[in-house]
Amino acid sequence: MTEHSLWRFSRALHRAISARQYEDLEALIDDDVDWAIFGPIDMFPFLGARRGKAAVLEVCRQITDNVRLQRFDRETVMLGVDSAACMMRYSLTALDTDRPISLRLAQFAQFKAGRLSRIRVVVDTFDLVEQVMGHAIHLPKIA
Amino acid sequence: MTEHSLWRFSRALHRAISARQYEDLEALIDDDVDWAIFGPIDMFPFLGARRGKAAVLEVCRQITDNVRLQRFDRETVMLGVDSAACMMRYSLTALDTDRPISLRLAQFAQFKAGRLSRIRVVVDTFDLVEQVMGHAIHLPKIA
Repeated sequence: MTEHSLWRFSRALHRAISARQYEDLEALIDDDVDWAIFGPIDMFPFLGARRGKAAVLEVCRQITDNVRLQRFDRETVMLGVDSAACMMRYSLTALDTDRPISLRLAQFAQFKAGRLSRIRVVVDTFDLVEQVMGHAIHLPKIA
Repeated sequence: MTEHSLWRFSRALHRAISARQYEDLEALIDDDVDWAIFGPIDMFPFLGARRGKAAVLEVCRQITDNVRLQRFDRETVMLGVDSAACMMRYSLTALDTDRPISLRLAQFAQFKAGRLSRIRVVVDTFDLVEQVMGHAIHLPKIA
């Protein structure tokens, strides 16, 4: 039984982000990949939408320049033939402040011939912003 | 072929939230359901974790008291035998301000004997907070 594309892609992505080794990742991304991590791009320019392999590799380099990957846990995984959905937690360190960041996200990936062709990532962005700023943002209670 | 539990649950949930009809939803929630919508509970007390059918029905009532459901689109759906993952967009109206809210979320659901036994929802919460407040929150650029 062939290994699911998710595991290969995931190993390559984490190798890129932890060890700045991009060769495996480059081989596993479709030339015309459609990529989006939803979040406030004013604060985090490496979030948002990208199209094509070069743009995605550049985003991965920018992420590597900003955070160190400490660990990750997949809380839920669903696999289709050429697709995967995961709910994940990441433990990161922000490189400029050395502050720990605990991130929850959901990722929906589509593969074509074993390469990533489409990905959508939803992040609990308010929690992320507060952690990176290092203090709570005052919010009114609405209900 | 039997209809997947997701569709029945989804219809019942939307019927509860749009029409305040909770009977169908009540029948489709496991007594010991494990429920979490991750987000800032200081601002939105109906987010967060709940355990058991009564607590979940109460949360659905609180959501109904705060927003009107206009429409929703499932952008990606993955179905397992007793599980489902969806990436969705909701168009809502905040009832206190009459302000439109466009919400992106990812939902991972587990069913037991056709009833919801576990759900985890990740929301693009920063975007949500800004829309509900009606103005942008100033953020430093970090990268």
